Amino acid sequence: MRVTGSIKRNRPYILGVAGGSGSGKTYFASAVQRALGESVCAIVYQDSFYIDQSAKFDFDGGAVNFDHPDSLDFALLVKCLSKIKNAEEAELPIYDFHSHSRSAKTLRLPVKPVILVDGTLIFHPPEVRALFDDLIFFDTPEALRFQRRLERDVKERGRTAEGVRKQFESQVKPMHDKFVEPSKRFANTTVVDVGQFDDVLARYTKALRDLI
Amino acid sequence: MRVTGSIKRNRPYILGVAGGSGSGKTYFASAVQRALGESVCAIVYQDSFYIDQSAKFDFDGGAVNFDHPDSLDFALLVKCLSKIKNAEEAELPIYDFHSHSRSAKTLRLPVKPVILVDGTLIFHPPEVRALFDDLIFFDTPEALRFQRRLERDVKERGRTAEGVRKQFESQVKPMHDKFVEPSKRFANTTVVDVGQFDDVLARYTKALRDLI
Repeated sequence: MRVTGSIKRNRPYILGVAGGSGSGKTYFASAVQRALGESVCAIVYQDSFYIDQSAKFDFDGGAVNFDHPDSLDFALLVKCLSKIKNAEEAELPIYDFHSHSRSAKTLRLPVKPVILVDGTLIFHPPEVRALFDDLIFFDTPEALRFQRRLERDVKERGRTAEGVRKQFESQVKPMHDKFVEPSKRFANTTVVDVGQFDDVLARYTKALRDLI
Repeated sequence: MRVTGSIKRNRPYILGVAGGSGSGKTYFASAVQRALGESVCAIVYQDSFYIDQSAKFDFDGGAVNFDHPDSLDFALLVKCLSKIKNAEEAELPIYDFHSHSRSAKTLRLPVKPVILVDGTLIFHPPEVRALFDDLIFFDTPEALRFQRRLERDVKERGRTAEGVRKQFESQVKPMHDKFVEPSKRFANTTVVDVGQFDDVLARYTKALRDLI
């Protein structure tokens, strides 16, 4: 069974962009947005939807597993994506990584024809998955994902290589193998080879331009 | 902004068919299903999603307002429609109108390319609305809706004309005006004239056939 289009639609197109940490999904989403233009395309980040963890940090700092689906408020993501799909403005939450709490402020997302959703676990909950018009997964080898994450966390976040390695092994990798990797079967497009990247980017950019 | 189709999709097409009681929506849904065939098209009824009211009936029988959105388990409808959208089998609830309770059994809905959702209030919750690929509303004049409901309830449900009229005035009409009528603005197609019916049916049947 294959259904390829709507009889009549007048709603934003939502593309889910998933993959492990360091897989290239954020780079891809940014590149698509740059190509289409910010007036036409916005990115919604899974990371904005962390559940307020400040209470936990007060008592047992560091015990929160940010790579587990339970750390995310997927019900709120469904609510926001439904608003977006219904061509209404959405109020996106803002998560403050310093205080590990959700900001009292929200970010108003205006209606745009193309919305990209970027996150490791966005293909995991069925109710989120159902709202994507298309699903692309970056299935990048673990060694490369680790290498990229190491560079980013050391350079941009001032962390030690040893700390990054420990976190990768104790949290990122087990959660990836348990929740992220199995969700790739839901993707329509799976990018397994870094060499495919430019081709996939060009294909998606063209297809999305044709839609709007 | 107008987005008319997906780049790549492989999921069922969900058409929401709404309108007041007696508006012709159920007749339309049945006619579309007959035209497409049951192997290709199934109907999901809002009425299956009533919240178990047996406890209320024990104490103040008749006090339940079945025309109010709060009488429906829309969270479960979102869950079922998400499964359907994700091309997975869904377990639909079964509501027993004699005992006013939800059956312990469920109805397994196999994956089919076209799913019609039939109900008065299905355009009301944003999270349900977001899951429809297309939305059609039967905006039938009140006099005709009442006339049809009267005939049906007297003939098929053995009720008195006076009882039907009282219920229409005390519950059906106020809830229609408050919740059903305002939701018609979300429809892509609004059928205002009974004379349009055959034309709309032919158009939808053709368009849906072309999709599958």
